[in-house]
Amino acid sequence: MPALLPSDRVAHHFSPVLPARCQPPCWGQIYVHHHLPPPHVTTWDPNTSTGYSWITLLLNWITPHLSWWMFFLLDCTADVLYCLCTIFLSLALPSLNLPPSLSQGTRDYNPKQMAIRERVFNTIIRCFKRHGAETIDTPVFELKETLTGKYGEDSKLIYDLKDQGGELLSLRYDLTVPFARYLAMNKITNIKRYHIAKVYRRDNPAMTRGRYREFYQCDFDIAGQYDPMIPDAECLKIVHEILSELELGDFRIKVNDRRILDGMFAVCGVPDDKFRTICSTVDKLDKMSWEDVKSEMVNEKGLSEEAADQIGQYVSMQGGMDLAERLLQDAKMSQSKQACAGLTDMKQLFSYLQLFQVTDKVVFDLSLARGLDYYTGVIYEAILTQNCPVNEGVSVGSVAGGGRYDGLVGMFDPKGRKVPCVGVSIGIERVFSIMEQKAEASARKVRTTETQVMVASAQKNLLNERLRLTAELWNAGIKTEVMYKKNPKLLSQLQHCEDSGIPLVAILGEQELKDGVVKLRTVHSREEVSHTHNSLFTSVWSPSPLVTIPGTLGGC
Amino acid sequence: MPALLPSDRVAHHFSPVLPARCQPPCWGQIYVHHHLPPPHVTTWDPNTSTGYSWITLLLNWITPHLSWWMFFLLDCTADVLYCLCTIFLSLALPSLNLPPSLSQGTRDYNPKQMAIRERVFNTIIRCFKRHGAETIDTPVFELKETLTGKYGEDSKLIYDLKDQGGELLSLRYDLTVPFARYLAMNKITNIKRYHIAKVYRRDNPAMTRGRYREFYQCDFDIAGQYDPMIPDAECLKIVHEILSELELGDFRIKVNDRRILDGMFAVCGVPDDKFRTICSTVDKLDKMSWEDVKSEMVNEKGLSEEAADQIGQYVSMQGGMDLAERLLQDAKMSQSKQACAGLTDMKQLFSYLQLFQVTDKVVFDLSLARGLDYYTGVIYEAILTQNCPVNEGVSVGSVAGGGRYDGLVGMFDPKGRKVPCVGVSIGIERVFSIMEQKAEASARKVRTTETQVMVASAQKNLLNERLRLTAELWNAGIKTEVMYKKNPKLLSQLQHCEDSGIPLVAILGEQELKDGVVKLRTVHSREEVSHTHNSLFTSVWSPSPLVTIPGTLGGC
Repeated sequence: MPALLPSDRVAHHFSPVLPARCQPPCWGQIYVHHHLPPPHVTTWDPNTSTGYSWITLLLNWITPHLSWWMFFLLDCTADVLYCLCTIFLSLALPSLNLPPSLSQGTRDYNPKQMAIRERVFNTIIRCFKRHGAETIDTPVFELKETLTGKYGEDSKLIYDLKDQGGELLSLRYDLTVPFARYLAMNKITNIKRYHIAKVYRRDNPAMTRGRYREFYQCDFDIAGQYDPMIPDAECLKIVHEILSELELGDFRIKVNDRRILDGMFAVCGVPDDKFRTICSTVDKLDKMSWEDVKSEMVNEKGLSEEAADQIGQYVSMQGGMDLAERLLQDAKMSQSKQACAGLTDMKQLFSYLQLFQVTDKVVFDLSLARGLDYYTGVIYEAILTQNCPVNEGVSVGSVAGGGRYDGLVGMFDPKGRKVPCVGVSIGIERVFSIMEQKAEASARKVRTTETQVMVASAQKNLLNERLRLTAELWNAGIKTEVMYKKNPKLLSQLQHCEDSGIPLVAILGEQELKDGVVKLRTVHSREEVSHTHNSLFTSVWSPSPLVTIPGTLGGC
Repeated sequence: MPALLPSDRVAHHFSPVLPARCQPPCWGQIYVHHHLPPPHVTTWDPNTSTGYSWITLLLNWITPHLSWWMFFLLDCTADVLYCLCTIFLSLALPSLNLPPSLSQGTRDYNPKQMAIRERVFNTIIRCFKRHGAETIDTPVFELKETLTGKYGEDSKLIYDLKDQGGELLSLRYDLTVPFARYLAMNKITNIKRYHIAKVYRRDNPAMTRGRYREFYQCDFDIAGQYDPMIPDAECLKIVHEILSELELGDFRIKVNDRRILDGMFAVCGVPDDKFRTICSTVDKLDKMSWEDVKSEMVNEKGLSEEAADQIGQYVSMQGGMDLAERLLQDAKMSQSKQACAGLTDMKQLFSYLQLFQVTDKVVFDLSLARGLDYYTGVIYEAILTQNCPVNEGVSVGSVAGGGRYDGLVGMFDPKGRKVPCVGVSIGIERVFSIMEQKAEASARKVRTTETQVMVASAQKNLLNERLRLTAELWNAGIKTEVMYKKNPKLLSQLQHCEDSGIPLVAILGEQELKDGVVKLRTVHSREEVSHTHNSLFTSVWSPSPLVTIPGTLGGC
């Protein structure tokens, strides 16, 4: 067993490796209570489904470091060790003054990351608005019952709030269930909406790959009873537009249908009660070889080898409208009503996709089987096929996914009234990761402010004049900065402009004040022109000096 | 005692009034567990600081409804009643199919509210960017220890997460403490940043007055060691700009200084250990008369009547730079070093405010005493002085507030290094409330989409042609909608444009297709012009028809 440390926060002082899957107790917990949990208390790790106590961790860690005379400690019972540790920690921790830290799996966004985030959001929101979508927002926590029974096995990853008297609450796990709750609660039967917000999962974080416990979702959904496949096709068009505009590299959108999958399982001889579990095994085909998937089906899930082989033939198929047509003629597939309905709709979908000119990226792929329970029709997933140049060899995988869920809203309606829905979710955190890496790799600076001009002075005792001019520029709607110093050096004022990409400096001096002018300096060319008050304002407004600054990042 | 009902959610079926302060157990809680909590379990209400059990509530409610023969029920022990109820509820509740609901004190934002919210945010963010601010974001939950000891008595209003193994977490209570944690953690000593995000307080909700348990905060802060009062003056300038641009009506910004308050308490003879509690009593002067405040000081807080009277004289003072000068000459005030430092800075502040041309709205008010512990210097608060015409007689009170907190970042730094900060928080939820009421009262429609054109057809069987044109418009960046029907009626397509404010309709017909043209109809004037493909695109792009639509809301 590897040596373990009780907390990531002190891990860097020592060498032992802390496995990422492990979620150890936190010093903070101890610090707040000023006592340790009793040694028999085990912490449950949802990822490994194992429990451990802090004392096990401590013993594991301490053993290799002990001298011979220290081994008497190990003769102590756990209880004595516990008491000693409690005393030690309650005395030592407050004076240790550990630096502040964040909860595992969460992150701050610094100004540079925010600038990138803003740019990505703008691209995506522009697309949603182009398609006539409205937007809504829902609370970050819902009544626990709202989320119960919607996520199958993943329910264990839901964050609950402490029962502090009142209601049982949980943090939202996605935006789809709150959306369905919103529709049912407000008796809305027609809406095209987008929703960009954070969701929460007590999952195993892998932050370098853009996997967090707090992360953004970015959903677009169309609710309403319409003629088949038209809104579904618009969702795919939207994925195509967004991924093209974000310039993430080449991509492909896989499409399938829950009904085709279910029909396929039926004709291949999968028993009804095993549809779901076999489906989740098929879902692993993007990460595992067919041999491993087959062996899981046969050995773990108890499927007959014959059935597995038949599935294997189907799930290797990829194509377009032609494949849908061929399968409709397929002796076996055509026996399933469900599959036929799915295949007919798939043909229809592709005909609309042709009108939308997006068939170059869309593939009908029988191996696509998205995990969530609530899908009832078309499902899709977009992947980047070309590795990002800065992200060598690491596949970021799925960057968008969604499908049709006609039953979810009915689960919330007291009378079970259904509202058919189809939607797509953009995997925005992965997009951020790629964009951040791109920005890092690029020599160009990411500007974090939009300041157009800095009001500076070359001489002393001009603070009042600087402040007065600054206020005038603000009042004219010009993005302006001024140093909060009585007598800043001109060099440090110019340096700040270089650092933060401010293109212009308005320089005040005794002589300029006498002449009633202001010198306007273009930072990158070092040109200086004297302006009267009025011409200063129009010069700063004129976009030309802003456009020609080299070294700043227009698009990421 | 009034009759009480166990939940808001069934309250509309019955008459008894549920006091807003009361936070009863929730059916959802029972429903999820399929059992009731034992009758001796009391739920603690943080607002009334009282506990009650569900059985008390039930008995209170049931008594007035009982016939004589039913009174035998009351002879049953609580335990028997408990068993009966458990059985009844576990059988009845699942079939009751209660409609879904939201957690108390939270709300959904519908598309109309979102459109207003977007407009308010844009105004505010534009101002922050004009002042050269960057933005950051922090996680919605922090380690509990990060929030511990920062909010004084209000700590009981912090939402904790359930301990599901791992760390003890709490939802953020404001954006200031996470900001300070961010600075200390990243060793940042200079930043001008804004942060707009939701915060969480288990407070007594008053949703009609814009008071929620989940609500937005909108903070602007300047961190760094600078010459005194320059950043402080910029914060006040920002409040002035934002409140002016939002057009909420007349407002006033009260300013004071913690050092002046403390100095005043000292010279009035308040014992050192009572500064804080007397300060929080003074803070009530905006809601209570001086008599009541004095009586609280004397009778509850044990202050001498003489001291209280002296305080009373000072806190009635309001003015500008002149008042600061007068108090510097004041025989008593001038004895306190602290007060003198505060007053000198106050004079300096007003001199900068004159340069910024905002002294018309700013008042130096000795009765202003903001509650939060962490303020160390200047404090301020903006109030609307003129009641909003649609909000007759109801004062919305404070719409912005803030101050200087030079010690907070040091609390997070292991070596206690201080980073002086000053900031302001815009009371954005109150602004939303006012804006929503204004929009409600106004005859003008709030558009929730930005769609420029609807692609419609007058005849049947033109779906493919509509979809093709729609895709072309999307590809040209034009905000376009199309109905998801094979053969929609022209009238219903036009009606949708009327309802959602779409200004233009591109109409396809057999004849137009033959002639290679599209009819472009302006919805409000009913004018129709035939266009070739190319001239259609430029016509839709031309802003003129978009600007002249009556009945839609440009500014709120």
